[in-house]
Amino acid sequence: MTMTMAEKILAKSAGKKETEAGEIVMANIDVAMTHDLTGPLSVESFEKIGTPQVWDPEKIVVIFDHQVPADSIDAANNHLIMREFVKSQNINNFYDVNEGVCHQILPEKGHIVPGELVVGTDSHTCTHGALGAFSTGIGSTDMAMVFSTGQLWFKVPETIRFEIEGNLKPHVYAKDVVLDIIGKVGADGATYKSCEFAGETVSNMSVSDRMVMCNMAIEMGGKTGLVEPDQKTLQYVQNHSSKSYEIMKTDLDAPSLEKMYIDVDELEPQIACPHNVDNVKGVSDVQGIEIDQVFLGSCTNGRISDLRDAAKILKGKKVNSGVRMLVIPASRDIYRKALDEGLMNIFVDAGVLVCNPCCGPCLGGHIGLLGPGEVSLSTSNRNFKGRQGSADAEVYLSSAAVAAASAITGKITDPR
Amino acid sequence: MTMTMAEKILAKSAGKKETEAGEIVMANIDVAMTHDLTGPLSVESFEKIGTPQVWDPEKIVVIFDHQVPADSIDAANNHLIMREFVKSQNINNFYDVNEGVCHQILPEKGHIVPGELVVGTDSHTCTHGALGAFSTGIGSTDMAMVFSTGQLWFKVPETIRFEIEGNLKPHVYAKDVVLDIIGKVGADGATYKSCEFAGETVSNMSVSDRMVMCNMAIEMGGKTGLVEPDQKTLQYVQNHSSKSYEIMKTDLDAPSLEKMYIDVDELEPQIACPHNVDNVKGVSDVQGIEIDQVFLGSCTNGRISDLRDAAKILKGKKVNSGVRMLVIPASRDIYRKALDEGLMNIFVDAGVLVCNPCCGPCLGGHIGLLGPGEVSLSTSNRNFKGRQGSADAEVYLSSAAVAAASAITGKITDPR
Repeated sequence: MTMTMAEKILAKSAGKKETEAGEIVMANIDVAMTHDLTGPLSVESFEKIGTPQVWDPEKIVVIFDHQVPADSIDAANNHLIMREFVKSQNINNFYDVNEGVCHQILPEKGHIVPGELVVGTDSHTCTHGALGAFSTGIGSTDMAMVFSTGQLWFKVPETIRFEIEGNLKPHVYAKDVVLDIIGKVGADGATYKSCEFAGETVSNMSVSDRMVMCNMAIEMGGKTGLVEPDQKTLQYVQNHSSKSYEIMKTDLDAPSLEKMYIDVDELEPQIACPHNVDNVKGVSDVQGIEIDQVFLGSCTNGRISDLRDAAKILKGKKVNSGVRMLVIPASRDIYRKALDEGLMNIFVDAGVLVCNPCCGPCLGGHIGLLGPGEVSLSTSNRNFKGRQGSADAEVYLSSAAVAAASAITGKITDPR
Repeated sequence: MTMTMAEKILAKSAGKKETEAGEIVMANIDVAMTHDLTGPLSVESFEKIGTPQVWDPEKIVVIFDHQVPADSIDAANNHLIMREFVKSQNINNFYDVNEGVCHQILPEKGHIVPGELVVGTDSHTCTHGALGAFSTGIGSTDMAMVFSTGQLWFKVPETIRFEIEGNLKPHVYAKDVVLDIIGKVGADGATYKSCEFAGETVSNMSVSDRMVMCNMAIEMGGKTGLVEPDQKTLQYVQNHSSKSYEIMKTDLDAPSLEKMYIDVDELEPQIACPHNVDNVKGVSDVQGIEIDQVFLGSCTNGRISDLRDAAKILKGKKVNSGVRMLVIPASRDIYRKALDEGLMNIFVDAGVLVCNPCCGPCLGGHIGLLGPGEVSLSTSNRNFKGRQGSADAEVYLSSAAVAAASAITGKITDPR
């Protein structure tokens, strides 16, 4: 029987030889990630279940990133709950307030390898499909069951495979490609599907770029994003992890496979306009819109390549006096690299506010919220009404390059 | 008639030849500073008064530091109110979210020179006496009157002059000296007095160190802290300001002058223990107390010398796994200097969380709050119950060196 990557990974995790889209399987979890915001709910539910010990402390990863350092007594309390949990459950894979964003830390610290089944109490857990793992967001109470049993049921998803061909023009990035796709298929265009990104353009992308693609699969409703492992994947895994892995690829004649062809040769920088991620326009249609805040960071575009792209544009320039720009590296390692490469000097000289690695304003948590009437240009993944602060604010989404160019002019600007 | 520095400055500001302690004078304000947290109240009151224009936009300085970047929609709204105010009132001395802590920005950007009368809607405005200005905190509604008229009434304070003699041992700093003094005189020991710091030890101190001393004058009830200008003062002023200034010194036979002699030859590092600043003990009495968080920063000890002192101790070491350490430079310039000197690399390698310049956890605002039962060692100026988060947390105050040494061990530690 021919199968997709998603079907193969879920079959393996369920201890079956094969499975097919639509089937319900009970699967064994390889990695279970939770963070400071959703973790306490999982712990509370886990305690209600009453299992004294988690099924396997080595397979659980706890990362603080949403409210770090604690911005309120409630947040500090959440941190205390989780610190007590990891201590009492002997969970060694614990990253306190000083490490970074969960979806960067998981691959960077070697927790993700191809062929595994990964769940996390965060909707952008789909990011990790970039390394060929089936990775998806789950609810906090579902996570309590995982903590308790190591298993979770899944309906095996159908797959939509985006065959992406063409060479990206200068200053056009993975973010533009995925925004273009989301604009085309819509916010519910891939609901509960495994979104595979394939083709020449994806082959040419770095692992970071592939993370950008997979990260946003959820924004078209996807159950996971996936990229077939190749040499770049294996190189990344070798550099970061000592875990064993299994490479699975989609059989192109698998019955549940649907294909969509995308040509990116002529693609210009893309912008998701308020208040939906699928409200996507080319930068030429929206340039000149005045902005109050620029946010460069998040699990989508807070990696070293994004900081490099932005620094190249900001070098020797100043952030417009009408704009505040926040740079938030996605991890301490990225922060350190940016220090070494002199990027922080460029940012600070330009008048940028460099914050500690964390989720920042992405989810309207505690750093860089918007007031009523304000307009933000953000490299993050969601622009829903009220997501970054006031419900009367507007959020545009873009690549790091558009963000940097726009910070200089104070208006949405084509970096080319 | 012989007069103190405080009397001389207030007499000049009131247009009088002389004045004496206890007299009420109506004085002209040279610098009026407000920030994002107290500013909106001043603006609201100013609008109630109904004066259409502020008395002198060049003498008003607006600095965002308490909630930067905005941590809530309320904070973002406060920022919007203040941005609109500076725009409509043509206030050019405006420092948005990316510059730093008001009491560092004021001298660093040249707004403070000797002999001036400075008011600010922040209790630690007394910091600026380090440059020989009479500088004091006022209420937000008082500031509305200043905005409107440029004047404010003062009861001329008596002076207590601390004659400090002796050489500080290695790893003993200005912070230890001023904590020692506060411990001796008590939290109300200098109520409404001008606190002059003089003597050989103060002469040997840098301007930064003198700022530490004056910053904490309010913690013994002082109306202002003051240091007589000397060559170091003038060098600092020349490096930072183009304003003209007037040097005033205390006549040592002034009737309202009281003296207190302090010997620091044998002084060990000092710690203010929960929950009052005057609950001061030598480090040898409290060492070994376990801590959860270390905060290096604030208008007291967030300067480049503090970062250097801490980096020297942290170099090649790791922050204890049971501790989170926050380093928050007091300004963008300090951040930039720390980058150039490689201090940030040392901090990030040690596992420190480096945040954007702001007040941080000092006032329990939005960065690094404490949960119930947690213990913090902080280089800031206040340890009142609940000040840095939960009312069930405890805050100890120390120098940067004690903070760094303690971060490594996880316990209050003598850096010597």
